[in-house]
Amino acid sequence: MTTPVRTDRAETMQARDIAVNVPTVTVDDPVAKAVRVMAVSRLPGLVVVDARSRPWAVLAGTQVLRLAVPGAYQEDPALVRTVDEDHADVFWQELADRTVGDVSPSRPAKPVTVRADATLLEVAALMARQHSPLVAVVDDDGVLVGAVTLERLITSLAVFNADD
Amino acid sequence: MTTPVRTDRAETMQARDIAVNVPTVTVDDPVAKAVRVMAVSRLPGLVVVDARSRPWAVLAGTQVLRLAVPGAYQEDPALVRTVDEDHADVFWQELADRTVGDVSPSRPAKPVTVRADATLLEVAALMARQHSPLVAVVDDDGVLVGAVTLERLITSLAVFNADD
Repeated sequence: MTTPVRTDRAETMQARDIAVNVPTVTVDDPVAKAVRVMAVSRLPGLVVVDARSRPWAVLAGTQVLRLAVPGAYQEDPALVRTVDEDHADVFWQELADRTVGDVSPSRPAKPVTVRADATLLEVAALMARQHSPLVAVVDDDGVLVGAVTLERLITSLAVFNADD
Repeated sequence: MTTPVRTDRAETMQARDIAVNVPTVTVDDPVAKAVRVMAVSRLPGLVVVDARSRPWAVLAGTQVLRLAVPGAYQEDPALVRTVDEDHADVFWQELADRTVGDVSPSRPAKPVTVRADATLLEVAALMARQHSPLVAVVDDDGVLVGAVTLERLITSLAVFNADD
């Protein structure tokens, strides 16, 4: 493994240049905390890490929401319509005390991660392929060093210079 | 755990109560504009409307990004790594001048919409099921009246009262 020397390519952005620090949760945290952490930080998803700060899963926002919506409601729109309105604001309380690990698949998909020196194209292609608006950035040991959000990626691309 | 006091159902929120006005695009708009509109408005997705302001598609943010990432890059991580870094920031220019209609499936999935009187549970279940962080709210004629974002949904739920 060689470390790229960047004399002439210094202006090309890499994942590390647009990554931000993000709060994380573990599989032992309650679902309600996971939902809150994501909302308070205005993140489009959430990184679940293991005890060594390595991403165990990178969840899109809708997957975090999914943790809080009882499965029967997700699958059956007709059932959802039978829930009276007084209960329809508090459905999430059914699962909020369970942990992220309790309600996650036992074998989550490979975490959506890139190395710190990934190009923006690599990040974009990964987001598009995995339908994930959040990508975890890891170091050589697989330890989380930050994350790239879809919003940050887009605003970092030259899209805004196209005809402005 | 405290349960909100609900003297009647007037206080139960519906989609209309948390919907926000969102900018839209049509199939004739360039992809670059679609990406910009989403980013400038800090939306997690985008509503594509027809000439009568009815949702034609509700795209998650990663689907909007997908419009701007040439298909070959999405499918082939090895190919992405061969793109030199100078080009890796401007890949999107290949497709930016094409229109949303040009690069969308000819038969998009049924738009992710709810009626204005949908409960928050209905909105949540739909987002979770369709993996869409944005839901369009329509009136009786199917005309767009607003949209609910995942962030707005979460902050509107009582999640924040659970143990704060």
